[in-house]
Amino acid sequence: MPSSQVIILYDFPSTVPGKACSPNTWKTRLCLNYKGLPHKTIWVEYPDIGKVCKEIGAEPTATCPDGSPFYSVPTIYDPSTKSVVSESARIARYLDKTYPDTPVLIPPETDAFHAAFNEGFESLLLPMLHLVLPLTFGAIHPESRAYFRKSRESWLGEKFGETPPVGQAREELWKKLAEGYTKVAMWLQMDGRDKLFFGGDNICYADITVACFLGCLRRMYGADSAEWADVKEWDGGRWARFMERFDKYEVVHE
Amino acid sequence: MPSSQVIILYDFPSTVPGKACSPNTWKTRLCLNYKGLPHKTIWVEYPDIGKVCKEIGAEPTATCPDGSPFYSVPTIYDPSTKSVVSESARIARYLDKTYPDTPVLIPPETDAFHAAFNEGFESLLLPMLHLVLPLTFGAIHPESRAYFRKSRESWLGEKFGETPPVGQAREELWKKLAEGYTKVAMWLQMDGRDKLFFGGDNICYADITVACFLGCLRRMYGADSAEWADVKEWDGGRWARFMERFDKYEVVHE
Repeated sequence: MPSSQVIILYDFPSTVPGKACSPNTWKTRLCLNYKGLPHKTIWVEYPDIGKVCKEIGAEPTATCPDGSPFYSVPTIYDPSTKSVVSESARIARYLDKTYPDTPVLIPPETDAFHAAFNEGFESLLLPMLHLVLPLTFGAIHPESRAYFRKSRESWLGEKFGETPPVGQAREELWKKLAEGYTKVAMWLQMDGRDKLFFGGDNICYADITVACFLGCLRRMYGADSAEWADVKEWDGGRWARFMERFDKYEVVHE
Repeated sequence: MPSSQVIILYDFPSTVPGKACSPNTWKTRLCLNYKGLPHKTIWVEYPDIGKVCKEIGAEPTATCPDGSPFYSVPTIYDPSTKSVVSESARIARYLDKTYPDTPVLIPPETDAFHAAFNEGFESLLLPMLHLVLPLTFGAIHPESRAYFRKSRESWLGEKFGETPPVGQAREELWKKLAEGYTKVAMWLQMDGRDKLFFGGDNICYADITVACFLGCLRRMYGADSAEWADVKEWDGGRWARFMERFDKYEVVHE
């Protein structure tokens, strides 16, 4: 177990500014920053994640096709309770329970809804996998690439190239992704109020999830790219306004 | 506009006990009964739904592939406000707003989540379409069948038979449907509490949605069927306990 006075967040490194590129580990990082909980990042290359997780006593988060346990990041170690917790939504619930005086991520009356949200939202993100996996593959360190390709192609059910699709294939994926976000924008306006957040005036874990996937798009294509300029125009500029509210939480603590 | 002192619910008739077989119109019926709002049902055959909706000034709920407006039930006419509202989730929001002293269907802090829930939950229900559409087709009146088949095959993207699939095809669909409900059961236990309802101790609109699809399965296969006996065993008997809580609301007012 690492000796630390602050929460440790296990993540894998990449060549993007700030090193962190995974939307899933960013979820936990935003949760920690939003709650104001001091923490530091320990960088682990993909092939070592299983070994490190086992060493610190983490639970597997899934089962591999061959029946062996699958370990993943984000995983945190919290020295104040000597707890190890894996998987971003479990970590969010752990942090809410352990630090009740910090801003709430998953209000109890939305707990089951948060799980349903995940199912609904992730079904809209399929085009994004095709658009960012090749870029992520290029951004992670060479020693992590074989592992990354194998696990992501197993999720995706198909191979991905070294660069994102171009031409009509890209146009179609981009259009589908935009339609997905337009659907989320509609969800936020169903009651006639034009809410910025699922949490209404306050950020909640669902909003952090949305922010992490938009952040991933911005990170992989670049904040100055034509792609990000496009996203900022989607839904009347809603997502540009939305992401501004996360600026102060998008900080990597090493 | 019909002269009535109570809310009118437009639905289509069938040969099942109580006549009402659509999970979508049942959503509105359960909402009205749960809120204790007096209402009566007007039965409209499928080919007449568009005409009736236009006559009472209902909004279309979708656009047909040829660009023409699509009208659907549930639609309600509320004489107390002279309002016509279509589509079950819109009706639920209308009822919450118009009758604030009745039990709340969509607590404001769950509004956007309710929309996301719908996306997530309906993605789990695909196997159910194959399992119940042929039975529904047999239960509706002959004059409604051609319209029903055309619209449902356009949703489904394929034709459906006159009887549900049998043998291995049926087993696989049934297994997938059970896995979908197991996922919902997991959503309800994410926070370590074993909640019966998305609304915690109280029924909310998401619970009504789940109940209407289970009710549809029970209605189409029969409460004494091997299929319903199976559902009652799913997830440690959770759905049997869950459905008992809806017994008193499953009443058709004509």
